[in-house]
Amino acid sequence: MKVLLCGDMDVAETAQWHDALAAALPEARWLDMAAARARPAEVQAAVVANPPPGSLQGLPHLRLIQSLWAGVDRLLADATLPAGVPIARMVDPAMSAAMAETALWAVLSLQRDFFVYAQQQRQGVWLQHAQRRADDLRVLVLGQGAMGRATVDRLVPLGYRVMGWRRDGSALAPLLAQADIVINLLPLTPETRGLLDARFFAALPAGAAVVNLARGAHVVDADLLAALDVGHLRHAVLDVFHTEPLPAGHPYWTHPRVTVLPHAAAATDPRSAAVVAAVNLRAARDGRPIAHLVDRQRSY
Amino acid sequence: MKVLLCGDMDVAETAQWHDALAAALPEARWLDMAAARARPAEVQAAVVANPPPGSLQGLPHLRLIQSLWAGVDRLLADATLPAGVPIARMVDPAMSAAMAETALWAVLSLQRDFFVYAQQQRQGVWLQHAQRRADDLRVLVLGQGAMGRATVDRLVPLGYRVMGWRRDGSALAPLLAQADIVINLLPLTPETRGLLDARFFAALPAGAAVVNLARGAHVVDADLLAALDVGHLRHAVLDVFHTEPLPAGHPYWTHPRVTVLPHAAAATDPRSAAVVAAVNLRAARDGRPIAHLVDRQRSY
Repeated sequence: MKVLLCGDMDVAETAQWHDALAAALPEARWLDMAAARARPAEVQAAVVANPPPGSLQGLPHLRLIQSLWAGVDRLLADATLPAGVPIARMVDPAMSAAMAETALWAVLSLQRDFFVYAQQQRQGVWLQHAQRRADDLRVLVLGQGAMGRATVDRLVPLGYRVMGWRRDGSALAPLLAQADIVINLLPLTPETRGLLDARFFAALPAGAAVVNLARGAHVVDADLLAALDVGHLRHAVLDVFHTEPLPAGHPYWTHPRVTVLPHAAAATDPRSAAVVAAVNLRAARDGRPIAHLVDRQRSY
Repeated sequence: MKVLLCGDMDVAETAQWHDALAAALPEARWLDMAAARARPAEVQAAVVANPPPGSLQGLPHLRLIQSLWAGVDRLLADATLPAGVPIARMVDPAMSAAMAETALWAVLSLQRDFFVYAQQQRQGVWLQHAQRRADDLRVLVLGQGAMGRATVDRLVPLGYRVMGWRRDGSALAPLLAQADIVINLLPLTPETRGLLDARFFAALPAGAAVVNLARGAHVVDADLLAALDVGHLRHAVLDVFHTEPLPAGHPYWTHPRVTVLPHAAAATDPRSAAVVAAVNLRAARDGRPIAHLVDRQRSY
């Protein structure tokens, strides 16, 4: 089986993925873009990490496009993507665990005022704040895929009052009105783009906090900054941004109520993800069902 | 039943405790220090929060000293403490939960480099660090009381490789050699004072981190600063200090590898602690066994 491996990775990252994939699927041969262009008819599958637009054109025997990343919004934006070829998202259990860890860390930090204490340390201030119990806090998790479920599974045993929502037609506003913390883990689709806007923030109770671990384009930045500046929102933890890296001088960098992470909430782990990809590649080769197929109509 | 309520609390705190205790034990009358001094023979029990030395002298019918705090090292340092009266520590389930939350937050922050990302935000730096899985980390919990056990109970299901130690004669050094993170939850006794010293830190592997949530006097500050400065230790999270509030100008305030919390890792919660105290006060009144008795020989 010959598999194209390509994406926006440096040579060291590509080598790390190659080694993990070769260990998980020793019968495959791994082609880079140049080799695939030289013998396009031999390429049976592609394992990709946001490859440059056009990379997957002209491969007549391509049976599967397996993304290494969970989010496929950038991949699907490539208008030259071959129409008939199935696309699979990466659902890596280690990545789901990492995302849930970041969500839990953000919830603990907000519940117990650890962001405030960090600011106090920089100012040399010794001041205790009222201790809130986990069951004092209502946490709303947007998105009920593998990452949303892993997050809920970690929050519930600790005593938080957890609510979940997914884009299935149920009303969001009544849930927002009861949420002290909202964690966004939705896929980016035409329906969810800009969902976190002035109306969304206004529906939250005063003093609520927002944790965005999904995509920067879910948030209308000006609306979030306004909600923070008037004090309606207590804090925002942001891992993702419209432009990444977050540009120098962007107000998020220095805002006292914003915690900036460098798109580090959860990375796909080659150790486990290579095994997930190998299972799908063998299924494609043998004509068995592919897991985690993308629905191009839904955009995820 | 007449109960002395006193300690180093302001009027608002005393009022909060009074209301919680009166709700949990409506049959009691609560005396302040002046009332107890006026009618010392009437005082049957004392509920105390590090009262001034001498406060508990000359009360001939005192049957129980119930601490509101878990740590009784300052209380036991009072040489005038009546010898024959049982002393009970507070074992408040809400406080144990709060302590375990702080320990979990510290572990997540260290595992996932969130202290590093906070520093990067202040410097405007966008840089991702290698993501470590929970099962990449070995966490050693010192102290196996209610707080140590609550911490272990939260870490284990998340996948950390957890070890526990208590001062029962088993060797500490072999455990230290295998610990990426050490969490101190020991009581302060003559045996544990200064336990976290140069020898202790040298026994840890390079790159380990220390989380002290117990007492400042467990740590030899100069030794900890030296271990951080030479880079042997990655980070220290410190909630407690030899002198509190931590004095202005102390090197911990500004050390890039030290996170300072203002003795906020866990507070006793009047909602639950008043119920725990009431159970013990009724037991003392009725001659039934007292829970969480302090062993003055062991000093906790």
